[in-house]
Amino acid sequence: MTQTLPSAAVLGARAFAALSGLNRFSDEPGKLTRLYLSPAHRQAAEWVKGAMEVAGLSAFIDAAGSVQGRREGTVPGAPAVLIGSHIDTVKDGGRFDGNLGVVAGILAAQALRDAGIGLPFPIEVVAFGDEENVRFPTHLSTSEALAGHYDPAWLEARDSEGVRLSDALVAFGGNPAGIASLTRKPGSIRAYLEVHIEQGPVLEAENEPVGIVTAINAQSRARVRVTGEAGHAGTVPMALRKDALTAAAEMALALEEIAAAHELAVGTVGVLSPEPGATNVVPGAAEFTIDYRAPRNETLAAMEAAIRNRFGAIAARRGVGLEIVPYAKAEAVPMDPQLQDAFAAGMARAGSNLSARRLPSGAGHDAMAMAAIAPVAMLFVRNEKGISHSPRENMTEADAGTAIKVLLETLLELAERSK
Amino acid sequence: MTQTLPSAAVLGARAFAALSGLNRFSDEPGKLTRLYLSPAHRQAAEWVKGAMEVAGLSAFIDAAGSVQGRREGTVPGAPAVLIGSHIDTVKDGGRFDGNLGVVAGILAAQALRDAGIGLPFPIEVVAFGDEENVRFPTHLSTSEALAGHYDPAWLEARDSEGVRLSDALVAFGGNPAGIASLTRKPGSIRAYLEVHIEQGPVLEAENEPVGIVTAINAQSRARVRVTGEAGHAGTVPMALRKDALTAAAEMALALEEIAAAHELAVGTVGVLSPEPGATNVVPGAAEFTIDYRAPRNETLAAMEAAIRNRFGAIAARRGVGLEIVPYAKAEAVPMDPQLQDAFAAGMARAGSNLSARRLPSGAGHDAMAMAAIAPVAMLFVRNEKGISHSPRENMTEADAGTAIKVLLETLLELAERSK
Repeated sequence: MTQTLPSAAVLGARAFAALSGLNRFSDEPGKLTRLYLSPAHRQAAEWVKGAMEVAGLSAFIDAAGSVQGRREGTVPGAPAVLIGSHIDTVKDGGRFDGNLGVVAGILAAQALRDAGIGLPFPIEVVAFGDEENVRFPTHLSTSEALAGHYDPAWLEARDSEGVRLSDALVAFGGNPAGIASLTRKPGSIRAYLEVHIEQGPVLEAENEPVGIVTAINAQSRARVRVTGEAGHAGTVPMALRKDALTAAAEMALALEEIAAAHELAVGTVGVLSPEPGATNVVPGAAEFTIDYRAPRNETLAAMEAAIRNRFGAIAARRGVGLEIVPYAKAEAVPMDPQLQDAFAAGMARAGSNLSARRLPSGAGHDAMAMAAIAPVAMLFVRNEKGISHSPRENMTEADAGTAIKVLLETLLELAERSK
Repeated sequence: MTQTLPSAAVLGARAFAALSGLNRFSDEPGKLTRLYLSPAHRQAAEWVKGAMEVAGLSAFIDAAGSVQGRREGTVPGAPAVLIGSHIDTVKDGGRFDGNLGVVAGILAAQALRDAGIGLPFPIEVVAFGDEENVRFPTHLSTSEALAGHYDPAWLEARDSEGVRLSDALVAFGGNPAGIASLTRKPGSIRAYLEVHIEQGPVLEAENEPVGIVTAINAQSRARVRVTGEAGHAGTVPMALRKDALTAAAEMALALEEIAAAHELAVGTVGVLSPEPGATNVVPGAAEFTIDYRAPRNETLAAMEAAIRNRFGAIAARRGVGLEIVPYAKAEAVPMDPQLQDAFAAGMARAGSNLSARRLPSGAGHDAMAMAAIAPVAMLFVRNEKGISHSPRENMTEADAGTAIKVLLETLLELAERSK
């Protein structure tokens, strides 16, 4: 059967051409900015709907603003395989983040249709619209709508210009009252598959075009405040100082050590500011943020304990005050092991020398929401220098083609497993 | 002779009463803010001139805005002993910084006059006006005028409101054209003595009311820029990071270590900012300032070498870029050893149990300028918690009295040494 399907090279060329089309739509000229429910989002959704129809899917823009396309399978009533990602972007974002996964689903469905291949399950492609959560203080609202976990309070959320989400949704052409009915029935989804740019440097470092995600990492964030004693930079002897900034510096290095000591964990101080912040004043206080993530909840808990322990010891030794205020936490979302193996089988079927490298995802994705109602799995694509959320985000056409080829072969693998 | 002089307790009470009078004059109600050539500075200068006259000194406000008072000695033509400090303050500054030294000089002269004691040298008291260098980008301009190092470019300097220094000086009642003639003749000053609040915690920590300054520290400042690679805080593994902030943190701790390892040295990172400065982004760059000081130029040079060495090693190990741009440097100004000993003798004569503790000054003072034309020495007074440049700056009345008593006895010691 597979000899009639397009090659990875052809799929890559098609993907890049499709992305050129889709990424014409931006809220800011000269940049790719496509915020949830914006005019550019509407235009992009219409483009996706058209592309789906061209690919043989019946498509519509749903009540929450996602685009849904579906092609029935050969076995009536079989649970569907969903292929999804998102078409919203951050401000001045990259071309591939989200968009590639939507295009991949459409091109896979199109290739199957063109080859005359019927699968024993429906294929759906979904283009979510609120993954980046930039415009409103929501959290994966469009995929949560399918998962049945849409928080009605989100409709009252306002953007930075004071526009309510529900009003923006109506203006977009959506329907706040229809969101509840988007919820998929338990058991109606056999698998949710998402192709996504890695947004990290691991695959590039290991010379792998694609990789299989094992889990979306557990994550915790906290604000830390260290209080010492301000003093004249010239007159307070080192032995009498309670320098809040050097204490904070030691804590930043401790976090780095803790992250390095835990498997596949990361830890970051992204914000740090000393007070008063003058060249000739020993800082009397310092505030910084910590963000740490790990594939397993137990690892995250161990890191939290280590952070409290080490930070506390540093503060005690230096005689400074310490306050750690956690403000965000997310549990780990493991990817379905059988679907991970299906991706690995898809790689083997794709015929290239792919080593089925497995890696965790440090960033959140719509798959997190979908995991509540379906087995989920993700395929990461090599990302030049790991740069994402930036116009410099890049990948090769060859890698994009390889990813879509693997997705296609994985669908065929799932079809065989259905027998 | 000395039995007729007032006790330390009486001198302390007089000093606090005098400071209450002088510190009525402020540019900001409710705060002590007295910027160079401001209306409050003029009022304070008039007050000082009056206080000098009451103390038996002939006084005038000079071309640069300093107040000068003089009482002739018993030996015609003998070089004068100057007692000086400043009456300008930082914004919202402390009551003692500068003002105490001026009041100390006036009260010492008054006590000698009242006791009928004639010294074999003229006594002068000088109230400089531009020590804090807050209003204009000058550097000790009023004492540099006496030292013959007034930079004419300072007259063109402008304050934050665009007012030229020369115009402000004329409005104050000064005379730009007369500044050059303020220069004292070589050999005309036997000693310059300055009493000043410590602006640091050393004397308090060692339970000493007063201390003898050994040197005004050499000082160097630089801006440091570390460039790494920005990345997603969730997706870039620790081993692949080039985190500019943790590199900067390590450098801040290295500076702290270097300062602690060099005798009487200090080192401070007062400003530090990571870029882009977002919780979920590994910092791609970090900028910070370093300020380091030591009593000897050789020590400062050794610290600079150590800093370049350690920072360079950290940058190399972490694979980040490093740029160190020095932007300010001052040589050490050693205090005259004989005058230091005269202060020690003054302490012994004062009869209290003073241990003649010697310590460097981490801050700059008018004595730095005067050192170019005269032997100089400074007496530091214990500072509550080392807090200065703040309304919380404080010292006890008893300590102020002890300092003035020591100054008086030091003058008598110098008189005896003249025989």
